[in-house]
Amino acid sequence: MRRAIALAARGLGSTSPNPVVGSVILDASGDIVGEGFHQRAGGPHAEVHALRAAGDRARGGTALVTLEPCNHTGRTGPCAQALIDAGIARVVYAVGDPNPSATGGAETLRRAGIDVEGGLLADEAEAGNIAWLTSVRLGRPHVTWKYAATLDGRIAAADGTSRWITSAESRADVHRLRAECDAVVVGSGTARTDDPHLAVRGIDGVVQPLRVVLDTHATTLPTARVLDDAAPTLVVVAEDADARHLPGVELLRLPLHDGRIGVHDLLTNLHLRGVRSVLLEGGPTLAGAFVAAGAVDRIVGYLAPVLLGAGPGALGAAGITTITDALRLDVTESVRIGPDLRITATLATKEH
Amino acid sequence: MRRAIALAARGLGSTSPNPVVGSVILDASGDIVGEGFHQRAGGPHAEVHALRAAGDRARGGTALVTLEPCNHTGRTGPCAQALIDAGIARVVYAVGDPNPSATGGAETLRRAGIDVEGGLLADEAEAGNIAWLTSVRLGRPHVTWKYAATLDGRIAAADGTSRWITSAESRADVHRLRAECDAVVVGSGTARTDDPHLAVRGIDGVVQPLRVVLDTHATTLPTARVLDDAAPTLVVVAEDADARHLPGVELLRLPLHDGRIGVHDLLTNLHLRGVRSVLLEGGPTLAGAFVAAGAVDRIVGYLAPVLLGAGPGALGAAGITTITDALRLDVTESVRIGPDLRITATLATKEH
Ligand SMILES: NC(=O)c1ccc[n+]([C@@H]2O[C@H](COP(=O)([O-])OP(=O)(O)OC[C@H]3O[C@@H](n4cnc5c(N)ncnc54)[C@H](OP(=O)(O)O)[C@@H]3O)[C@@H](O)[C@H]2O)c1
Ligand SMILES: NC(=O)c1ccc[n+]([C@@H]2O[C@H](COP(=O)([O-])OP(=O)(O)OC[C@H]3O[C@@H](n4cnc5c(N)ncnc54)[C@H](OP(=O)(O)O)[C@@H]3O)[C@@H](O)[C@H]2O)c1
Repeated sequence: MRRAIALAARGLGSTSPNPVVGSVILDASGDIVGEGFHQRAGGPHAEVHALRAAGDRARGGTALVTLEPCNHTGRTGPCAQALIDAGIARVVYAVGDPNPSATGGAETLRRAGIDVEGGLLADEAEAGNIAWLTSVRLGRPHVTWKYAATLDGRIAAADGTSRWITSAESRADVHRLRAECDAVVVGSGTARTDDPHLAVRGIDGVVQPLRVVLDTHATTLPTARVLDDAAPTLVVVAEDADARHLPGVELLRLPLHDGRIGVHDLLTNLHLRGVRSVLLEGGPTLAGAFVAAGAVDRIVGYLAPVLLGAGPGALGAAGITTITDALRLDVTESVRIGPDLRITATLATKEH
Repeated sequence: MRRAIALAARGLGSTSPNPVVGSVILDASGDIVGEGFHQRAGGPHAEVHALRAAGDRARGGTALVTLEPCNHTGRTGPCAQALIDAGIARVVYAVGDPNPSATGGAETLRRAGIDVEGGLLADEAEAGNIAWLTSVRLGRPHVTWKYAATLDGRIAAADGTSRWITSAESRADVHRLRAECDAVVVGSGTARTDDPHLAVRGIDGVVQPLRVVLDTHATTLPTARVLDDAAPTLVVVAEDADARHLPGVELLRLPLHDGRIGVHDLLTNLHLRGVRSVLLEGGPTLAGAFVAAGAVDRIVGYLAPVLLGAGPGALGAAGITTITDALRLDVTESVRIGPDLRITATLATKEH
C-alpha cells in the first residue's frame, strides 16, 4: 500500500477535479504484477492502468488501491466492474470514497464475491489525498497558505524592501508547491508590488495552475506578467468594476461584502470550475482575510534566518484580538531548505 | 575527544569565569584509564581530575583535553606541569587557549619532551565552549537571546494576552538554558508585566544564574518575585535613580546614554563580575537594543504553531530599516519541543 500511496502522489496537480489514486496488483502468489496511478482527469483510473499492466496475471490476485474503487460510470466506466472482470480475488483499499456519486464500490465488489478490506494505511493515504478529500467534505478547495518571513515574522523591512528574504532554494521549492495545486491566488497588493508571474518554472510536464488575482477595482495593468500565456489567469473583480483596459482577460465578477470580495464566494466559484486545491501566495492582507474566513487548511512557512525588528508581519489582521482566539495548528513537518526552514502545519481542529 | 567534549558540557553553567573543559586519559596501550571535567571555578581542572582517576596508569599514556592545558598558576597550579609530573607521553587538545594569561601550555609540554597535537575536533569543542571563548575574544559575555513567539512572530495578542503561547515542554526547556548560563537579563517592561522569577527550577545541583533587571528608574517593586532569595539578583538603574524603596537589593548604577542604560556598559560590568554567558529573556524592546548594539551572538526561538495576525512582534526596533541591513544568522539546530519548534541560530558573520 505504501507503494500505491507513492504512486498516487505522482498525480498531484494534474488529476483535479478527480482525486489522486495509486494501485498495485499482486498475482495469486503475492508478487507485484502491475502498478498504476491516475494521471489526469479524463484518463484511465489507477486500477485500470494497473490491471492493464498485469494482464492475465491479475486473475486470482489482490488489488491494493489508495481509495475505495469507484462505482459510477463516469468518463471511464466503474473501476469496481473492471476489477471483477479481471478476476481479482481480493481488494484492499486505504480510504473510503466520500463522494456520494462514486461510493458503493466496496459493496459492489463484495456482492461479486470478492474479499474486500478497507482502512490499510488510511492516515497516510488520507494525507496524500487531503486536497480532494477536503473539497468533497467542505464543498470548497483545500487551501494552503504559503509565506516567506524572517525568524521574527516579517515579510519586508521597514522601508518595504524584501528581495530576497528567503533563499533561491526556498523559491525553487515554491514551484513544487505550485505544481501540486490547481490554482494560485494573490491579492492586488502583491500583484501591484511584485508583479509576480505565478506560473510553474523548472518542472517538466506540469499542468500549470490557474493564476487568480483578487482585484476588486480591476487595477491590474494589461502589461502584468500574470496575464501572459504561460498559464491560464482569472482576474476576480467587483460586479461593477470597470475592466475595459483588460480586453481578452478572463474576469470573474463577484458581489462585494463590506467592500470586499468574499473569500467563500471565491472558493465556491473555483470549486465549480474543478479547482480542488489552492495555494494562497497573497500578502498579509489577503492571508488575514482567509484566516478570518476559516479558509486556511494548511500553512507552509519558509523562515529565513534573518532578523529585522521592524516591517510588516507575515499575517495581517485576521479578526483575532485575544490569545484564546488564536488559530492553533499542528506542525506536521519541519525541514531545512538551503539556509531556511520550511515549516508545514495543519489546522489543529478539523472542521468536518 | 568526543567523550572529552561530552564530559566538558557537564560543567556548563558552573565553571565561570573559567571555561568548560573535559579530559580523558588513555594508558600506553590506548585504554581509557581516567576521565574528568572542570566542575566549578576554584575546583581542580579537568586534567587533574582525570589524572587522579588514572593514577599510575597515566605513565607513558595519552591525555585528550578539549582545551589547551593551562600554563599559569591560578587557584590550582598549571595543568601542563601536572601532565608532565604524571609522565604523560602525548597530549592531544582540541582548541588553543586564547587567554593571554594561560596560553603557552602546549609550548611548556613540548619543551618537556611531550608529543603535543592541537586541533582535533576543534569545531565541536569550540561550539561547546563558545560562551567562554567569546568572552575572552570580545571582553564581554556571550549573549543568547531567547524568545517565544507564534509562527507569525508575535509574542502576544492585540489585547496583550500571551499566557501561554508556547507549551509546558518549551517552558521547561528554558530552565535548561538558564541553568547553562551565568546571568539572566530582562527589562523593566517584562519585570512589570510578567513579574517573572527567573531562577532555575527542576534541575538538581544547579548553580543559579545571576538575575538581572534593567530598570532605569528603579520601578521594581520590593515584592517582585525576582527579589526573593532563590538566586542572586542585580537591579541595574541610572546613576541618579531613587531606589530607597529597595533596601538590601544589590544595585548597579550606570550612566545613561540618550536616556538609556548602555548595553555594552552593562555587559562590561557583568564580565568584570565573572559572568561569561548571558541569557537575554527580556521583551522586544530590550532585545531590539541588544541587536542594535551588536550584542546578540546566538538566538533560541521557541515557535508555537499558532497564528495571531496582530499583536507585538518578538523583536522590537533594532535600528534596521532596509533589507540589506538585516541581521543574518545560520540555523544550527531545529528540533521539536512538544508541539513547538525550537530554532537555534548563530551570527552569520563572526565579530572577531
Ligand atoms: N513574503 C511573502 O510570503 C509574501 C507573499 C506575498 C506578498 N508579499 C508582500 O506583501 C506585500 C503586499 O501586501 P498586501 O497585503 O497588500 O497584498 P495582498 O494581500 O496580496 O493584497 C491585498 C489586497 O487584495 C485585495 N483584496 C481583494 N479581495 C480581498 C479580500 N477578500 N480580502 C482582502 N483583500 C482583498 C485588496 O485590494 P483591492 O480592494 O484593491 O482589491 C487588498 O488590499 C508586498 O510587499 C509583497 O511583496 C509577501
Ligand atoms: N515571548 C517572549 O519571549 C517574551 C519574553 C519577555 C517578555 N515578553 C513580553 O514582552 C512584554 C514586555 O515588553 P517590553 O519590550 O516592554 O519588555 P522589556 O524589553 O523586557 O523591557 C523594556 C524596558 O527595559 C528598560 N530598559 C533599560 N535599559 C534599556 C536599554 N538599554 N534598552 C532598552 N530598554 C531598556 C526600559 O524601561 P525603563 O526606561 O523604564 O528602564 C524599557 O522600556 C510583556 O508583555 C512580556 O510578557 C515576551
